[in-house]
Amino acid sequence: MNFERWHALHSLYADYAAALDARDLARWPDFFTDDGRYKLQSRENFDRGLPLAMLAFESKAMLKDRVFGAAETIYHDPYHQRHVVGVPRVLSEGADGLRCEASYVVIRTKRDGLPEILSVGRTLDRIVDTPQGLRFAERCVVFDNDLVPNSIVDPI
Amino acid sequence: MNFERWHALHSLYADYAAALDARDLARWPDFFTDDGRYKLQSRENFDRGLPLAMLAFESKAMLKDRVFGAAETIYHDPYHQRHVVGVPRVLSEGADGLRCEASYVVIRTKRDGLPEILSVGRTLDRIVDTPQGLRFAERCVVFDNDLVPNSIVDPI
Amino acid sequence: MNFERWHALHSLYADYAAALDARDLARWPDFFTDDGRYKLQSRENFDRGLPLAMLAFESKAMLKDRVFGAAETIYHDPYHQRHVVGVPRVLSEGADGLRCEASYVVIRTKRDGLPEILSVGRTLDRIVDTPQGLRFAERCVVFDNDLVPNSIVDPI
Repeated sequence: MNFERWHALHSLYADYAAALDARDLARWPDFFTDDGRYKLQSRENFDRGLPLAMLAFESKAMLKDRVFGAAETIYHDPYHQRHVVGVPRVLSEGADGLRCEASYVVIRTKRDGLPEILSVGRTLDRIVDTPQGLRFAERCVVFDNDLVPNSIVDPI
Repeated sequence: MNFERWHALHSLYADYAAALDARDLARWPDFFTDDGRYKLQSRENFDRGLPLAMLAFESKAMLKDRVFGAAETIYHDPYHQRHVVGVPRVLSEGADGLRCEASYVVIRTKRDGLPEILSVGRTLDRIVDTPQGLRFAERCVVFDNDLVPNSIVDPI
Repeated sequence: MNFERWHALHSLYADYAAALDARDLARWPDFFTDDGRYKLQSRENFDRGLPLAMLAFESKAMLKDRVFGAAETIYHDPYHQRHVVGVPRVLSEGADGLRCEASYVVIRTKRDGLPEILSVGRTLDRIVDTPQGLRFAERCVVFDNDLVPNSIVDPI
C-alpha cells in the first residue's frame, strides 16, 4: 500500500459519505460496480449469520431503484445526516480486490431538533479497480444499534 | 498531493481541533492568515445563501477579539469540548489555495453531566501556504443542528 | 515521518480500536510492550496531576488479569461499543519512542437500546518499535466525562 493508493481508497470513503450527507442520492449508485452489492444489517444478525437485513441490493440497478424510492416516494420527516468515518483498515488485498473495514457514526438532525445518533457500526467492504477508479463491489454496513430511532430512509 | 503535503494538511486540522479542545484559545487566531475569515453558520442559511451567521469574523484581529470575549467576559457554565474530525477531502487546488471539506462532531461535557452533541456538520475551508506553514484563509463551519443546546461560547 | 511509518502508526490505533469493538479482549494486551502501562483517568484528575484513575495497569500481565476479569468475572448488562478515533497527531519522536495524541469517542449500545456516548476524550500515548512492530509502551486515556453512564467494563 503506497500513499497514492491509500489516498484513492480514503477518498472513495470520504466522497461516499459526503455525497450521502449532501443528500446527493443520485450519485450513490456510482460508487458501486455494475453488479455491486449493498447490505445494511444489524450486528446481531450479522454475527449469527442470519440472512435478514434492513436493506439488501444486488446490483447498481437495484441501488438506483432505492434512490428513486428514497427521494420520490417515501414520505418522512425531513432530516440531515452526517457521517463521521474512521480511516479504513485494509484487511487484505487479493485478486478479488481490497477488503477493508471502517467504523462510522451517523448523526441525524431533524428540523428544530437536537442531533441524535442514528446509526453506529462498521462497514465491511470489497473494493475493486475499475476504469473509473476504485469502486465498491460489496459494501456491508453492520450497525450496532438494532433499535433505530424512527426509520432509516437514506442509505448509510 | 503527495504524502508530505497531505500530512501537513491533516496536521493543520488536527492541531486546530486539539488547541480548541484544550481550551488553548489564544492559539486559535494563529491558525489563520492575517486577513483570515471565519464563519459559523447553520446549514439552513448556508444552503439558501442567506447571510445570517452565528459568528462571522473577517480578520485575525477580530478573532483575537473573540478570544478575549470567550475567555474573559462571557459568563457561562464551564464545559469541555471534544472534536472528532474526519480526514479532510481536498476539493480543488488552485492559485488561491487548497479548498477542502471535512465532517466534524463536537461533543460537549458539562461538569457532572453526560456528554452531548454540541455541534455536527462540516467545515468548508480555503487553505494557503505561508512562511509559517499552511494556514486558513477562510474557514466556514456549517452546522446541521440549527437548534443548539444552550449556547456556543468557544469557536468550533 | 514518511508514509510507511505513518501507516504503521495509524494501523496500530485502528487495529486496537477494532479489537476492542469486536470484544476480542484476549488481543488487547498484545498491543502493549511487556512492561506497557495503561491508565484510564478523568480529565479533571489528569489536569490537576491527581493520581486517582479508574483503571491503572503497569505491565502486560496486569492487562491480562483485567481481560480475565472483564470477560469472565464481572457481571454486567451486555453491550456493544464502537470507537471512532481521529487520526493520531505525532507530538514528538525521540529515543523513548513516538509521543502521540488522538481524540476518540466511544459509543455504547445496549440490547434494544439507543446508542449513547459512553466516553469521549483523548489518548496520550508513547509508542515504541518492537520486533513485532509498533506497540504501546504507555497509553493514557483521558476522558472528558467524569460522569460515566453506568460503568466501564471493557477497556477504552
